[in-house]
Amino acid sequence: MNAYYLACDVGGTQLRAALYAPTIAQAVQQKRIPTVGKESATERLMMLIADIWPSEGQVLGIGIGVPGMADPETGIVYKAPNIAGWENLPLQQQLQDRFGVPVVLGNDANVALLGEWRYGAGRGHHNLLYFTISTGIGGAAIIEDQLLLGEHGLGTEMGHLTILPDGPLCGCGQRGHLEALASGTGIAHYVAEQLAAGVPSQLAGQACPNTRQIAEAAHQGDALARSAFERAGFYLGMGLANYLHIFNPSIVIFGGGVSQTGELIFAPMRASLEKHLMSPQYLADLEFAQVQLGDDAGLVGAYVLAQQQISRQRSQSRLSQK
Amino acid sequence: MNAYYLACDVGGTQLRAALYAPTIAQAVQQKRIPTVGKESATERLMMLIADIWPSEGQVLGIGIGVPGMADPETGIVYKAPNIAGWENLPLQQQLQDRFGVPVVLGNDANVALLGEWRYGAGRGHHNLLYFTISTGIGGAAIIEDQLLLGEHGLGTEMGHLTILPDGPLCGCGQRGHLEALASGTGIAHYVAEQLAAGVPSQLAGQACPNTRQIAEAAHQGDALARSAFERAGFYLGMGLANYLHIFNPSIVIFGGGVSQTGELIFAPMRASLEKHLMSPQYLADLEFAQVQLGDDAGLVGAYVLAQQQISRQRSQSRLSQK
Repeated sequence: MNAYYLACDVGGTQLRAALYAPTIAQAVQQKRIPTVGKESATERLMMLIADIWPSEGQVLGIGIGVPGMADPETGIVYKAPNIAGWENLPLQQQLQDRFGVPVVLGNDANVALLGEWRYGAGRGHHNLLYFTISTGIGGAAIIEDQLLLGEHGLGTEMGHLTILPDGPLCGCGQRGHLEALASGTGIAHYVAEQLAAGVPSQLAGQACPNTRQIAEAAHQGDALARSAFERAGFYLGMGLANYLHIFNPSIVIFGGGVSQTGELIFAPMRASLEKHLMSPQYLADLEFAQVQLGDDAGLVGAYVLAQQQISRQRSQSRLSQK
Repeated sequence: MNAYYLACDVGGTQLRAALYAPTIAQAVQQKRIPTVGKESATERLMMLIADIWPSEGQVLGIGIGVPGMADPETGIVYKAPNIAGWENLPLQQQLQDRFGVPVVLGNDANVALLGEWRYGAGRGHHNLLYFTISTGIGGAAIIEDQLLLGEHGLGTEMGHLTILPDGPLCGCGQRGHLEALASGTGIAHYVAEQLAAGVPSQLAGQACPNTRQIAEAAHQGDALARSAFERAGFYLGMGLANYLHIFNPSIVIFGGGVSQTGELIFAPMRASLEKHLMSPQYLADLEFAQVQLGDDAGLVGAYVLAQQQISRQRSQSRLSQK
């Protein structure tokens, strides 16, 4: 009989699901639907899972990547800001009740790093850091082959590191966080502010240029646009120095739209990192990489999560039956 | 035949050693000698070990806490600033060659946390943070019962977190680190600066009052002295918020002389922590504690380190012999 893991990637725009064989990270089948519809997001997720459920064979378990704070231990989604109604939601229990198989939740950044570690840029490493830089800054850490979660799954909020007291406002309500300084939102806010203050730029006239437009202007030599990436890279390097002092990883993996601007942000980041490290030994054998799995990282990672957790639970329950 | 673990605590002032039975964290015997003498520190450490070596019975292994950067994997002391000549020192190899038993090294903060976790304030916890606040700020983390070391043992340099760009100079040469703002040295520098600027205080006239003198003045209501602790507590709370966002621990343990000033620094720390957390959920079930093992934490921890590592090596070598 065929056996499968069912992986789901919950996003603000779309819900994706895939079926995987237990040992091969290649989806047997994939489906996606919009997150928003006349049903609730939870109902739509259940519809999608029912839709992809194999007509023959067994589902060993379901792994789900959630864009927000989720506790893998209790299976509760504390808060997923982009999914209406997902606050203190016992999602694991609801899905287990509905489908009768083990369900495991993970924060989307954690799940993406699991995918990259097993099947992407992080293969062969034991101590990994991951940063996804887009609208916000998310992150994850694997330490000696174990995902860092914390007591209630609230760890590795890597963007929410104060590095500039009284600095710009962060999406979370605090000030001067790495996310407020080096995310796409942080870059765009800075440019909008400078334009409003009358700093000359080819972007003048656009009310709120986005990161892509700012990157284009920077490539064309626009001084304000270049300085916006230099500033973001400077703070990113300062934050990264902090993280190297804490974790001493062997690889740092970057993902997210802003990291695709490449050297615009990475050149000033590296200069700032070197300036802020207390010892060059933190750079010994350290690799920098970009994500390799792209849009599929969430699905592949949810599959790895399900496989890890559920095979652990099965071996524990076998032990306790002996 | 009796079997023992031999634990050593290397400090800038004294070298300590103790013999422990394999399962009881109570020293059978203890000795100490000054670190500095006519021999090198390494020779003096070897003399001390030979001196406490049991006349009957077997030594299973030696655990050593080192005040500096040490790689438990390679057994090399990269740098121990307070021990003359300890730079890129293959201490593990030298001691194994001399005594013929397994030797394992650990950074002193890591070793102290191991001791507190198994026999002190951290018993029963799985996710622990430890901060020792004295001349500098050191730290350690245990995640799911495993010490966080990093790829080359250079992790958890908790004091070397930039939280105030272009802030005061740190002992490591960088600026604005938590250590430069909230350690005893940071507090004393701030007071000396304010006195030099003519700020009135009962400490005026003393060139460089130390933390103890500043704490006494604060208890007597001196405004400058109180503000020095408030400032240190503010930055400590800001740094701690960062660490809770990263680690989501269930206990934070404080040690070191400055933490003995109690509410002088902890009251402003807690206020600042609450202000800087992105969610009160990081405080759910979170315990704050002071170290319980005092001066013995280094010895007890070196014993735990030896016991853990060496029993792991023995079981691995038994497995590989099968």
